[in-house]
Amino acid sequence: MAVLDQQMMARALQLAARGLYTTEPNPRVGCVLVRDGQIVGEGWHVRAGQGHAEVNALAQAGAQARGATAYVTLEPCSHFGKTPPCADALVKAGVSRVVAAMQDPNPQVAGRGLERLRAAGIAVTCGVLEAEAKALNPGFIKRMRSGLPWVRLKLAMSLDGRTAMASGESQWITGPAARADVQRLRARSGAVISGADSVLLDDSALNVRAAELDLPEDQARAAAERQPLRVLIDGRLRVPLTRRLFQTPGPTLVVCYQASNRQAEYQAAGSELLALPGQDQHVDLAALLAELAGRGCNEVLVESGAHLAGAFWRAQLVDELVIYMAPRLLGSQARGLLELPFAHMAEAMDVEITDLRAVGRDWRITARPVFPS
Amino acid sequence: MAVLDQQMMARALQLAARGLYTTEPNPRVGCVLVRDGQIVGEGWHVRAGQGHAEVNALAQAGAQARGATAYVTLEPCSHFGKTPPCADALVKAGVSRVVAAMQDPNPQVAGRGLERLRAAGIAVTCGVLEAEAKALNPGFIKRMRSGLPWVRLKLAMSLDGRTAMASGESQWITGPAARADVQRLRARSGAVISGADSVLLDDSALNVRAAELDLPEDQARAAAERQPLRVLIDGRLRVPLTRRLFQTPGPTLVVCYQASNRQAEYQAAGSELLALPGQDQHVDLAALLAELAGRGCNEVLVESGAHLAGAFWRAQLVDELVIYMAPRLLGSQARGLLELPFAHMAEAMDVEITDLRAVGRDWRITARPVFPS
Repeated sequence: MAVLDQQMMARALQLAARGLYTTEPNPRVGCVLVRDGQIVGEGWHVRAGQGHAEVNALAQAGAQARGATAYVTLEPCSHFGKTPPCADALVKAGVSRVVAAMQDPNPQVAGRGLERLRAAGIAVTCGVLEAEAKALNPGFIKRMRSGLPWVRLKLAMSLDGRTAMASGESQWITGPAARADVQRLRARSGAVISGADSVLLDDSALNVRAAELDLPEDQARAAAERQPLRVLIDGRLRVPLTRRLFQTPGPTLVVCYQASNRQAEYQAAGSELLALPGQDQHVDLAALLAELAGRGCNEVLVESGAHLAGAFWRAQLVDELVIYMAPRLLGSQARGLLELPFAHMAEAMDVEITDLRAVGRDWRITARPVFPS
Repeated sequence: MAVLDQQMMARALQLAARGLYTTEPNPRVGCVLVRDGQIVGEGWHVRAGQGHAEVNALAQAGAQARGATAYVTLEPCSHFGKTPPCADALVKAGVSRVVAAMQDPNPQVAGRGLERLRAAGIAVTCGVLEAEAKALNPGFIKRMRSGLPWVRLKLAMSLDGRTAMASGESQWITGPAARADVQRLRARSGAVISGADSVLLDDSALNVRAAELDLPEDQARAAAERQPLRVLIDGRLRVPLTRRLFQTPGPTLVVCYQASNRQAEYQAAGSELLALPGQDQHVDLAALLAELAGRGCNEVLVESGAHLAGAFWRAQLVDELVIYMAPRLLGSQARGLLELPFAHMAEAMDVEITDLRAVGRDWRITARPVFPS
């Protein structure tokens, strides 16, 4: 039983992962219906407003759902959103057992979907492959619990920890496989944040480009259709509206540090202008993240220079560091990774490296900050 | 046959590796004697002046060596050194076949030991697990071919590519497992090179300490008995003889950039003083390496600060870069890895990462320089 439960949940997680690039602001969820040891229905959530995983699996199973076990990667919902509650659909279909990988992370919901199933006489198990299920939705979980998105800080550096020459010369440090990986990080994010310095230097568009994702064609197309919100932190509004960021289709949000009379100008260019005053004439980064979470962003990708990256880090707003390390030495005059002006070893900050792997000829290091408590 | 050959050579390589910390200036060599599919003798070279691998294996096999196949990780020697030629010993013992992993890298010998065997009617195969055999003796091979040792540059850095705070504060960036690994790098080297700045700052002894090697007790003891030559590059003779380097037993060589009248003073302290004048009042690093090769150093470990490390790198004298990367951020004011004053991306130097693995809580990156041709 336990082995079958794990096998079927693993399959449900595979299905859930198909929504990696399309479900925002919703979580990625997969569902498998099993009767007499046979899979009779499979489904996953594709995008907000469309069917939930359970409903899609039930539709495939039809009458065979009666008496089946449903494996769901997230507790079935018990409330009316854009679609009716999945818990009710499972009850109505006559499912006899529900296995969930994890509870709904929303503290106001947690467990109520499962209770509803139990009340209807359905056997319920929760916690199968829970860690794997949580890893699939770090942003949704964090946003539900804290009202803030999961912040991924992406950096590209040389083996000697440098990002660009002192002059700013920087392009093509990493190879095509690493750049495709960054495209996929953008594609799974609700928002991509960059700063004025980076955008002025690189003229980056910050969008998701189907051809560069290195994904199956249908998945790439779906990912590019749902562009992340592109956020430009431009305190003093230095980036001209003629830049590629504004000329590329998709929603953009420009954040400055004080109210501006240029709202109409940005609006005419298809962009939104927002003032989030922080200290010392800087944008309030925590307020920005709360704003993005309020707009439904689960995962946020920060792609910026050392200055803005260091500001996010120092404010302890980073959940995950993703570093692409190129097998090159840029030398001792080149620019550093993060602006962190520490003078003493005691100020040094620990990280926990959670993953390290080859990406083409480069290496990707994933780490979590260990902030002093 | 081919599979058996590989299996037995793999065993011979395992035996050879037991000499990793003791054979300098000789190569690490292992030998297995096989008759009728059974191992009848095993041997490896322990240290210079003692029996070669073949002789040790023959001694174990006794009369059973007749008609056996000998698997040797390096072509048997054909010349009289401190011991008689191993090729003759194999002929005399009546071995019927010899399988060698690689030829002797010395251009004046290469193949002559094998010829001698063939001339005596012995079947000879060469090249089985050749790459693995070469990897065991990078220094011996390089020294035989070029008259220079294999130079390993060891650096310890944070995730953001920093080695110490701007003040010089630096100790304990990496954990105990990484420090034990460095001890083993020292133990396999013929010489360990450091610079005056590092020794003045850290007061390091640069010696091999049995208790810190994290090796089986007998191997650790043998390694510590054979201390590498500790080389201090001290152009202006700034390091006092009261420092730990000079107070710790084992041979030391101090290298300055011009003839000095302090020879007797260093000699009295048990140290040797050598002037190797280079350009701009610096020590001639290439001449130093040739000198060390002349003294039988196969592998040389450079453990220094960014300045000297950068000088070795810029002079294209480095064969291998070994970086211990600690999961910490030291910040943007901390000291960089290598002093390489590049201004343009075109000057950036590529490396080939050959190995990357966890060492305790740190990561070890091994890379080879790709010098512009």
